[in-house]
Amino acid sequence: MVNISVTALLEQMTLDEKIAQLMQITPNFLTDNKADLTGPMEWMGLTEENVANVGSVLSSVGAGKVIELQKNYMANNRLGIPLLFMADIIHGYRTIFPVTLAIGCSWDMELAERSAAIAAKESAVAGIHVTFAPMVDLVRDPRWGRVMESTGEDPYLNSEFARAFVRGFQGENLSSDTDRLAACVKHFAAYGAAEGGRDYNTVNMSERQLRESYLPAYKAALEEGCEMVMTAFNVVDGVPATGNKWLMRKLLREEWGFEGMLISDWGAVHEMIPHGAAEGGEQAARKAIQAGVDMEMMSSCYVNNLKQLVESGEIDEALIDESVLRVLLLKEKLGLFENPYRGADEQREKEVILCDEHRRAAREIAAKSSVLLKNEQVLPLHPGQRIALIGPFAQSGDILGPWSIWGSREEAVQLFEGISEKTAPARISVAQGCNIETGTEEQLAEALQAAQSAEVIVLALGERSEMSGEAGSRADIRLPQVQLDLIARLKQFGKPIAVVLFNGRPLDLHGVIDQADAVLEAWYPGTEGGGAIADVLFGDVNPSGRLTMSFPHSVGQIPVYYNNYNTGRPLKAENADQRYVSKYLDIPNAPLLPFGYGLSYTTFTYGKAKLSADVLQPGGQLTVTVEVANDGKRAGEEVVQLYMRDLVGEVVRPLKELKAFEKISLKPGEGKSVTFTLQEERLRYYHSDLSYESDAGDFQVFVGPNSRDVETLAFRLLK
Amino acid sequence: MVNISVTALLEQMTLDEKIAQLMQITPNFLTDNKADLTGPMEWMGLTEENVANVGSVLSSVGAGKVIELQKNYMANNRLGIPLLFMADIIHGYRTIFPVTLAIGCSWDMELAERSAAIAAKESAVAGIHVTFAPMVDLVRDPRWGRVMESTGEDPYLNSEFARAFVRGFQGENLSSDTDRLAACVKHFAAYGAAEGGRDYNTVNMSERQLRESYLPAYKAALEEGCEMVMTAFNVVDGVPATGNKWLMRKLLREEWGFEGMLISDWGAVHEMIPHGAAEGGEQAARKAIQAGVDMEMMSSCYVNNLKQLVESGEIDEALIDESVLRVLLLKEKLGLFENPYRGADEQREKEVILCDEHRRAAREIAAKSSVLLKNEQVLPLHPGQRIALIGPFAQSGDILGPWSIWGSREEAVQLFEGISEKTAPARISVAQGCNIETGTEEQLAEALQAAQSAEVIVLALGERSEMSGEAGSRADIRLPQVQLDLIARLKQFGKPIAVVLFNGRPLDLHGVIDQADAVLEAWYPGTEGGGAIADVLFGDVNPSGRLTMSFPHSVGQIPVYYNNYNTGRPLKAENADQRYVSKYLDIPNAPLLPFGYGLSYTTFTYGKAKLSADVLQPGGQLTVTVEVANDGKRAGEEVVQLYMRDLVGEVVRPLKELKAFEKISLKPGEGKSVTFTLQEERLRYYHSDLSYESDAGDFQVFVGPNSRDVETLAFRLLK
Repeated sequence: MVNISVTALLEQMTLDEKIAQLMQITPNFLTDNKADLTGPMEWMGLTEENVANVGSVLSSVGAGKVIELQKNYMANNRLGIPLLFMADIIHGYRTIFPVTLAIGCSWDMELAERSAAIAAKESAVAGIHVTFAPMVDLVRDPRWGRVMESTGEDPYLNSEFARAFVRGFQGENLSSDTDRLAACVKHFAAYGAAEGGRDYNTVNMSERQLRESYLPAYKAALEEGCEMVMTAFNVVDGVPATGNKWLMRKLLREEWGFEGMLISDWGAVHEMIPHGAAEGGEQAARKAIQAGVDMEMMSSCYVNNLKQLVESGEIDEALIDESVLRVLLLKEKLGLFENPYRGADEQREKEVILCDEHRRAAREIAAKSSVLLKNEQVLPLHPGQRIALIGPFAQSGDILGPWSIWGSREEAVQLFEGISEKTAPARISVAQGCNIETGTEEQLAEALQAAQSAEVIVLALGERSEMSGEAGSRADIRLPQVQLDLIARLKQFGKPIAVVLFNGRPLDLHGVIDQADAVLEAWYPGTEGGGAIADVLFGDVNPSGRLTMSFPHSVGQIPVYYNNYNTGRPLKAENADQRYVSKYLDIPNAPLLPFGYGLSYTTFTYGKAKLSADVLQPGGQLTVTVEVANDGKRAGEEVVQLYMRDLVGEVVRPLKELKAFEKISLKPGEGKSVTFTLQEERLRYYHSDLSYESDAGDFQVFVGPNSRDVETLAFRLLK
Repeated sequence: MVNISVTALLEQMTLDEKIAQLMQITPNFLTDNKADLTGPMEWMGLTEENVANVGSVLSSVGAGKVIELQKNYMANNRLGIPLLFMADIIHGYRTIFPVTLAIGCSWDMELAERSAAIAAKESAVAGIHVTFAPMVDLVRDPRWGRVMESTGEDPYLNSEFARAFVRGFQGENLSSDTDRLAACVKHFAAYGAAEGGRDYNTVNMSERQLRESYLPAYKAALEEGCEMVMTAFNVVDGVPATGNKWLMRKLLREEWGFEGMLISDWGAVHEMIPHGAAEGGEQAARKAIQAGVDMEMMSSCYVNNLKQLVESGEIDEALIDESVLRVLLLKEKLGLFENPYRGADEQREKEVILCDEHRRAAREIAAKSSVLLKNEQVLPLHPGQRIALIGPFAQSGDILGPWSIWGSREEAVQLFEGISEKTAPARISVAQGCNIETGTEEQLAEALQAAQSAEVIVLALGERSEMSGEAGSRADIRLPQVQLDLIARLKQFGKPIAVVLFNGRPLDLHGVIDQADAVLEAWYPGTEGGGAIADVLFGDVNPSGRLTMSFPHSVGQIPVYYNNYNTGRPLKAENADQRYVSKYLDIPNAPLLPFGYGLSYTTFTYGKAKLSADVLQPGGQLTVTVEVANDGKRAGEEVVQLYMRDLVGEVVRPLKELKAFEKISLKPGEGKSVTFTLQEERLRYYHSDLSYESDAGDFQVFVGPNSRDVETLAFRLLK
């Protein structure tokens, strides 16, 4: 990490300047009238000098604004150290892509990378240097609103996406490619395991479980070169992640060798106080800096206390130097010392943002992220059909989803607009039917009227975006009752009903999937959502999305995930009528819809899979080959999935673990041979003593279109 | 553990005899016609010699039967080693007490001890030597059917009950007091944390969490001298408890110094195979014996494999000797070598079982275990009132609850019988209203008819006992819809409704508690349930039960428990309208009914609590004194509760932890001063490095009638 110029700069900095460098605040502190800021400044205990030397600003976007801010800042900064601009560029900047959970359902790393690259480009020209993405928290609880920010419940798939997003945001060379952003993987660690699905809640698991399931995706992002890490709001075994020395010093820095910059989540250093892990700001600052947090986001424990902690000898100034150096190195890597306005360009903003290419990509990705959950010969629609488009999402711009701060609902293509492209307006009757959570008799009457003359009903239902996302936890994961009632009422016509769902979490779909003839999970599809979903509804795009989170049978089944364990008394077909097996009395053990599941407008047939050998040597590899054919009449894409089970472990092993997948395109009648390579190192796992190795013995390999419907093969690992 | 006679006996035993000594089977193997047993014997791989030398039998009861079995067995046993008879004597033998969760709600250690002593006496005269109790698993998930076997969600309260039950079962001297049983604490460890509340399911938590919350009650039972430990069905950090060397060798034996006998749960050694932790019986046997399981219950991995494992040198015969010695020592301690028929006495069976004293105790304990959840001037009933007694539990003997194998529903006093003792039969109209999960129009019509002429409706609702207990997991924890509909229909009369609940878990009470004017949680009250509940309904007993598990707002709130953590963004009255706090959008964070909650027919007023000092020295103690007065017109019992919070910890500390309680009786107008002593050692907790110590700093103390409605005091611990 030695860098002469940056080290020289560090040496010139006063302790106050160093400490200010470790703070990140919102731009209003720098731009607003000082009188207006008295309150916040006082509350945070900030001086004008703190603000004049602050290291970074978050959530300030727009080339003009950023350039002006940087210019004014530099003018007052003694050593000419530029500000670092960060923002939450999560699934797009102005061109909003589907939410991350939806992109996960594409199982398509190229699309994920492209979406991140476009998001990077649009925000880089708007002056941003760093995005707080990717979020790669493993998620198993659909009550938690932030599941829509993750790619799902699988460590391997999440890791692949983590890498793709990092590649997309950062590109090949962050220094020279000013259309890219530094990425910041979050939330370190295990934030996705918030108890009860209640946001910010306690997390508890063993270190082995943490390593087995939750850590791989963060590690993958770092292996891909991700520049930054953000801490999590939760505790990790009782210690807030933001003050967790084991997590950050021992695991992240020492064991994983991460040398980049570590930032707290919003206010998380200060939140060690309500957590009950710090008596006050001084202790919070001490614990965070000792644990390795370089930059404090939106609380002021560092600027208010670090100086005193150094002067009293409680912490060594070297600790601060180390963190400042990391901040300066990132600034240097981004080329900010040469050009503090890196990338920000008002002219290019006009050319790049929401350009046709980006909109086209958004439309393609949204279509490929949707998942067809049911289809009884209703979809695709025919342009000649009379369609009743009903529901609160029929004409709604609330399809961008949470974390689309700079996107605009007004710029979003609504479903009605998308459908109107496909068929004559005279053939569409539209009605809202109800609001998201309430409804009137009049709305219902309009819907019934609209349905009257239609041949097919397209019912656009879902959750307001505020019902998911950060702090969007729901204890009831069904659609609001008024929407279920709407389906039930429309069902009475006996006409085919295709439900399109706009939502941010796996839902309990009782009352929906059993009532509708077709269900398309559109998630929050983003700016081009209406067009993209219309593309799918009318068959211009053949749906190929596959679920990356299990859809639970009911909220009482949570957590339910495909990579679970057998238990000592597994439920099987042959013992289902026995009492003393691991089951619920009132619902099945299996989720309503399994991981990896999704339908197509064509049908794919799997040939008999072949293993290259039935034994595997240490350090060796096997191949698994399967022929997949498109037996239907439309071209389509299939995600061929490979799972594995280690039958006997020193610790119990998951019933299935995704080990490989390939997304293939097949024309009607076409067949392809898909070959997966399974290396012995992919069989390794964490043992009780945390050693990471494989064990000789029997393994099963599963091949199929989802985690449930698979063919089983077997081999033996020798040692 | 050196004992000359037993050691000498061991030396005479062949390896086969030793191994057979480590097996426990059901009595049919010894009593049934050999031809009938060919199937089971073959399936288990047992020889006649195995059976002739088996160490223990479970679930064989009745003095006559046990004596005959022992006599025949001894006649064929070369060395005259008697059989050890064990059984599940959980909450009574023939005189059934309320389920353990209900007894927990009594907060009364004397009652708990007495119930165990009576259960011991009734089963000891029936020939039993060991009971598989107490079950002390900490429980936080009401979906799990076995919560009714636990005293609830608090480590301290569970520990106190663990001690009381052990005292009750074992008495002062197990050798001389043949009316007592050896106790076997279970399920070691953390079985109560089964994921999703699905029985036998995966458990995962950190070692620190295990030590903080889940282990204390097992440890307390052992400190009280509990003779045996039973393993759990679940994994503990990936390793089945029954093969978990860390758990049993390192923690239980080395660290805790447990020298007693360790038995597997039913089939749990063999279940290491489906768990995927053993390839077959041989590996399962090896792992279990190496981990320290002395006796294998109802699977035959030991008898089928241990000899070969010794002969091949894979395990040392000393391991087997060690286990056999523990079995023999327990037999000796129980006096079986002197009298193999210890306690079994057909004459005393007639005198003791279901005797008046036992029935009186069962009635008292059932009444004191019931919890009054709501009462809007409906209860107590007056003998002069015309009562409609409606519901599937109005005339049901299914009030014994799970694990009452030798109790008889025919011997149970039904609610109708209990109420009939209190008032003239002419004043009671009875109707079933519906079955537990179904109902007919005719049943409903009868109920409406019964309600017509009544002044008050007593509605006896609940779950069939099979809906809880082992393998009784429910994903929906509401009353079945038909019962909710019954309430709704009866509500239309506008007459006061008192609901009495018979069930084995905290329920989601929406549709019940909001509809009824009074709700009495009777749990499964046992043999004398009907009389006991009538005693409460008519005010002969003033209800004093207090919940020991939180009643969740809905299943989507699980887990919800009082001793949770603050998080970094706690929900408070003053931020309830803000988004970014830890909460659900659709339900409160607080449970519907909190831990410690319960009403009385009188009112208790708390004076201002006083702390003896506002600082505490290391090794010192504080006292907390509070005046409690009975302001009402009836005598009553109040459970005065003391909670504590460590405001800042090295790991985050619970918002409240129960540290003391006292159950007091107060006559109308009477007041009492209750003094609690809080020693510094009660402030200790497990740190990240697993050190167990207290930290200097600020603490809060809470005093009140439940975990929610408390007065707050503060002190500082010095160091």
